[in-house]
Amino acid sequence: MTGWLAIAGLGPGDEALVTPEVTAALAAATDVIGYIPYVARVTPRPGLTLHPSDNRVEMDRAAHALMLAAGGARVVIVSSGDPGVFAMAAAVFEAVDHGEAAWRTLDIRVLPGITAMLAASARAGAPLGHDFCAINLSDNLKPWPLIERRVRLAAEADFAIAVYNPRSKARPDGLDRAFAVLRDICADARPVLFAHAVSTPQEALHIVPLPDARGDMADMRTVVIVGSSQTRIIERPGTPLLYTPRSAS
Amino acid sequence: MTGWLAIAGLGPGDEALVTPEVTAALAAATDVIGYIPYVARVTPRPGLTLHPSDNRVEMDRAAHALMLAAGGARVVIVSSGDPGVFAMAAAVFEAVDHGEAAWRTLDIRVLPGITAMLAASARAGAPLGHDFCAINLSDNLKPWPLIERRVRLAAEADFAIAVYNPRSKARPDGLDRAFAVLRDICADARPVLFAHAVSTPQEALHIVPLPDARGDMADMRTVVIVGSSQTRIIERPGTPLLYTPRSAS
Repeated sequence: MTGWLAIAGLGPGDEALVTPEVTAALAAATDVIGYIPYVARVTPRPGLTLHPSDNRVEMDRAAHALMLAAGGARVVIVSSGDPGVFAMAAAVFEAVDHGEAAWRTLDIRVLPGITAMLAASARAGAPLGHDFCAINLSDNLKPWPLIERRVRLAAEADFAIAVYNPRSKARPDGLDRAFAVLRDICADARPVLFAHAVSTPQEALHIVPLPDARGDMADMRTVVIVGSSQTRIIERPGTPLLYTPRSAS
Repeated sequence: MTGWLAIAGLGPGDEALVTPEVTAALAAATDVIGYIPYVARVTPRPGLTLHPSDNRVEMDRAAHALMLAAGGARVVIVSSGDPGVFAMAAAVFEAVDHGEAAWRTLDIRVLPGITAMLAASARAGAPLGHDFCAINLSDNLKPWPLIERRVRLAAEADFAIAVYNPRSKARPDGLDRAFAVLRDICADARPVLFAHAVSTPQEALHIVPLPDARGDMADMRTVVIVGSSQTRIIERPGTPLLYTPRSAS
């Protein structure tokens, strides 16, 4: 049996946002590996072994998957959202880069998914309709001064900014510090979107002007999108629409 | 009949990358509107009217869709990739913002799709695995000095940079000018990915070091991803892998 490894994105939560490509890979798999809540989204069946693991063991998980695939298993690593955005794809390639030579010849594919910021953007309107950036606020893997520098330069570039992992347990004040940097540069009341658990039953969207944005408006399941200077709100009955025009001057 | 408007992303080309949500919307539609090659991806059926239109008529197309939906039609506007990323969603909300008051009460949904940079990233490995930005290089809708400023600040922030619309007919030298800005700031040989028509029969990936990158390596169907200072290549038989590690210092 020839093994392979697919690193697959399950999207933000709704099964209607899982691509047929990912569904087909799961149907062909012998082993599914991933963080506990993501593996819980895969339906058990005979011939499929589920390997749920805890958070923050990405490198162990990657090595486990590579060893199984090298041994002939058909392995799917599941991520939420897109596996290439602050998720398992980079971890697997780090393992390949520094691991056994035989891993380089494995059949490894990345299967893209709907990443959190694009699901959130779609639900709110089109806040990422013009130039934007994505910043991971977790300082597990990079020093805080680098994060702060990126937030500052992104604001100077007038990007809309998608913030992943806005609340890290180790640094609960990170998002407040990022907002302080942004308020320092952006003197306006541009909208900030807090999008919680988009496409799940717990979905909640909340828009506040930057001067009123607070770190405790986000949790681990929130993606935050800070508008650019051009981002606009369309008031209407119910939830307002948020969008960034295509043109800028 | 109550009309609605869905602005749907068809992904980069492969039907296996179209979400079930988008497939369901197309099955329920009475009218499909969009740029000719995207509408051509929708299978005709009785009861469905296809409205293909030329490029660069986004505002006419948006108004047409809103009028049809206001009249009771079930309308899907199709974009390639994700409709919220340099595509039709922002155009529709611009039309709503400046158009008839009745349009604000319409049922309008954005259905996300796999955007070009994430499809390209998946195929190449994980070059967007750390902080990154997306810049539209077309200067139809913004002045060139703003584009150049954003490219410079993005390089200073050490983002990986995804470049959409790298070749505009009106300014064929735009990408060369962007590379010149990048070489000015980044003294290294970081990899640049040219990803052409990902997930279609014409797919072609090409990786060159920044000093060798030239504008004519891209065309209208290419997305370009410029690595950060940390982006690495894993050599192996066949196509090398490209990834950006999760950590940075």
